[in-house]
Amino acid sequence: MNFLNEIAGRYPEAIALAAGRPSEEFFEIAAVHRYLHRYERHLTEELGLTAEQAGRAFFQYGRTKGVIHELVARNLAADEGITADPESVVVTVGCQEAMFLVLRALRTDERDVVLAVAPTYVGLTGAARLVDLPVRTVRSGPTGIDLDDLAEVIRRARAEGLRPRACYLLPDHANPSGLSLDLATRHALLDLAEREDLLLLEDNPYGLFTAGGERLPTLKALDTRRRVVYLGSYAKTGLPGARIGFVVADQEVVHPDGGTGLFADELAKLKSMVTVNTSPIAQAVIAGKLLEHGGSLVRANERETARYRENLRCLLDALAGHFPADGPVRWNTPEGGFFLVVTLPFEADDDLLTVSARDHGVLWTPMRHFHDAPEAANQLRLSVSVVTQDQICEGVRRLAALIADRLA
Amino acid sequence: MNFLNEIAGRYPEAIALAAGRPSEEFFEIAAVHRYLHRYERHLTEELGLTAEQAGRAFFQYGRTKGVIHELVARNLAADEGITADPESVVVTVGCQEAMFLVLRALRTDERDVVLAVAPTYVGLTGAARLVDLPVRTVRSGPTGIDLDDLAEVIRRARAEGLRPRACYLLPDHANPSGLSLDLATRHALLDLAEREDLLLLEDNPYGLFTAGGERLPTLKALDTRRRVVYLGSYAKTGLPGARIGFVVADQEVVHPDGGTGLFADELAKLKSMVTVNTSPIAQAVIAGKLLEHGGSLVRANERETARYRENLRCLLDALAGHFPADGPVRWNTPEGGFFLVVTLPFEADDDLLTVSARDHGVLWTPMRHFHDAPEAANQLRLSVSVVTQDQICEGVRRLAALIADRLA
Repeated sequence: MNFLNEIAGRYPEAIALAAGRPSEEFFEIAAVHRYLHRYERHLTEELGLTAEQAGRAFFQYGRTKGVIHELVARNLAADEGITADPESVVVTVGCQEAMFLVLRALRTDERDVVLAVAPTYVGLTGAARLVDLPVRTVRSGPTGIDLDDLAEVIRRARAEGLRPRACYLLPDHANPSGLSLDLATRHALLDLAEREDLLLLEDNPYGLFTAGGERLPTLKALDTRRRVVYLGSYAKTGLPGARIGFVVADQEVVHPDGGTGLFADELAKLKSMVTVNTSPIAQAVIAGKLLEHGGSLVRANERETARYRENLRCLLDALAGHFPADGPVRWNTPEGGFFLVVTLPFEADDDLLTVSARDHGVLWTPMRHFHDAPEAANQLRLSVSVVTQDQICEGVRRLAALIADRLA
Repeated sequence: MNFLNEIAGRYPEAIALAAGRPSEEFFEIAAVHRYLHRYERHLTEELGLTAEQAGRAFFQYGRTKGVIHELVARNLAADEGITADPESVVVTVGCQEAMFLVLRALRTDERDVVLAVAPTYVGLTGAARLVDLPVRTVRSGPTGIDLDDLAEVIRRARAEGLRPRACYLLPDHANPSGLSLDLATRHALLDLAEREDLLLLEDNPYGLFTAGGERLPTLKALDTRRRVVYLGSYAKTGLPGARIGFVVADQEVVHPDGGTGLFADELAKLKSMVTVNTSPIAQAVIAGKLLEHGGSLVRANERETARYRENLRCLLDALAGHFPADGPVRWNTPEGGFFLVVTLPFEADDDLLTVSARDHGVLWTPMRHFHDAPEAANQLRLSVSVVTQDQICEGVRRLAALIADRLA
């Protein structure tokens, strides 16, 4: 991503249809103080801690698995219909640390591999590289995951003597594709995971942000057989600056001595060697936001969700206004989230992005940065999370001008 | 450390001469709010950011290398006489992440090994295990590091076809030994590192806490040849609950393409795959504390330093009061920090600790948890950081009763 950051830095005035960070519109530093006070009141008034104990909860190291696990579990029940034992929750430094810990735990020797639906979030491939765990990609197809291809990738890996340990995916408004799995695909995927003795690593940073339709149950909410390791992020729904994520890992693990334990406790052991624990002060900020909204981030994000929905609508309208339906420029229609994918009749590479930023003042992300399948060459990702509707209209106008130039 | 935590949990009333966390006596949650306000004023009044920009600095992800690097560099100049280019600083999630990143970066293949002065901090051995980097131990001897042994360990490793990449040590008031290196040893160690083309990983969480004598310069302050990677922690001197550490990595690295860069930037690349970045809110808390004390944590910790000094004095007096100078129980006399080591005329193992906690109500740490050299078997670590002087007196009385029981 260095090239992308560099381009963005070089053309700060260009319209940022590339940025994946959440809206900054409603940020107010005062909220951080409010959240911290709210969590302090929770500790003293609701949990009955003395001032001294509350102070220790803020200041000392605290549990490796985190101190807001009960609130995370309440949040999952309220927003996702997930019943999680708080002991199966590990609070992490962003979702990235959760991914890193899970991949490190799954990597026992050079026969282990992880599968990932392509195009894949770069944080996953980065963490996998760091722990020497090869990634085998699975086609997304029109349903968000091609289950036949998944079965085939598993079969091929096993034929090579490898152990496919898990398949990583974002079932809701995926980054970068914008795709979501329908309900039938979710059930079929869970069945396949059971049949093939595979874990599913469900990453869900954008699930709340629907563009209007009903939210589908997460894989974890449908998971009756402990096949799903749920990777949670409060970066988009809480506050990016708190760097709080978590993982629900309720799988049973058999130890070398024959005893059993929770996968969450295995992850905690690894975490103690990476970051020891997650800042209790940062956890307190997220806890306060959760408490302020009765444990629901759906409620906490009503303004943001509406804004992303309007922006996505606006982007789709602008694309339809500039490019004829039967023309060479195509795009998908996500049901929510931050992203959609545009397919051009020519390559959408870093060189074109440079021209776009320099001569046309609009930034986007070449899909090549997410996967190297042939179809990615002509694709680009657009994001609506940190732009105004005026910027979206103008950004698409500039993109259309760039494309017209190329086609001329 | 699981067993130790478990014992401490089972006997909560026992006197904690085992805990390594900092004093809780001066904690006040109000300080967190004050620090955050102070940093906000720094951003707006001193750096001229708009309210919107300051909000983004708190809320968004921020630089992977951290956002308070300038303040960290000022702090190092003020307190440690270290001149650090802010670009060579990577702010990390505690010093643990700094260690993890450095060890991961040094581990290129199975020929790499790291050296560590024994007894070694468990966080170092844990991180090394996680990245599959073997640890070869170097004797500490009476000077804190046995340089002849270091040279010999390097020689032996090279004879086996291995690459000793670095030697880890705590030159000041080490955990767990309490030992410090004298000035001549520091210079000799730096010379040896240059001669042997070795990095030194200097970990310095306790350097501020002298028991009265003058503070010696850190290795990094004496390092004119970029041999020292400095691992910094604000857990003991700032706030444990912020989980802020850092690394100064000003070494030049040659890339595969022949270009060069800073080791800090290599570490940042790895960090982007582990935690992406360190919570800017947590960084803001530490920044506020630094700013409140003119960049000096020596000043910020005057009360704490005095308390640790009085406690260490008290512990030494209590030991001298209970055990005759020519008797079978011996101990060292650290010049500061939290810890000292007692040597018994019999084994100080987990079984003895269990008896100590259950029957005598006093907790300590078997040195066996830090290294497996024969001399560790009879040793235990005492800590003075979270106890009162009354507790120290009573704790040593109880320890003496345990020892008398055993010798009877």
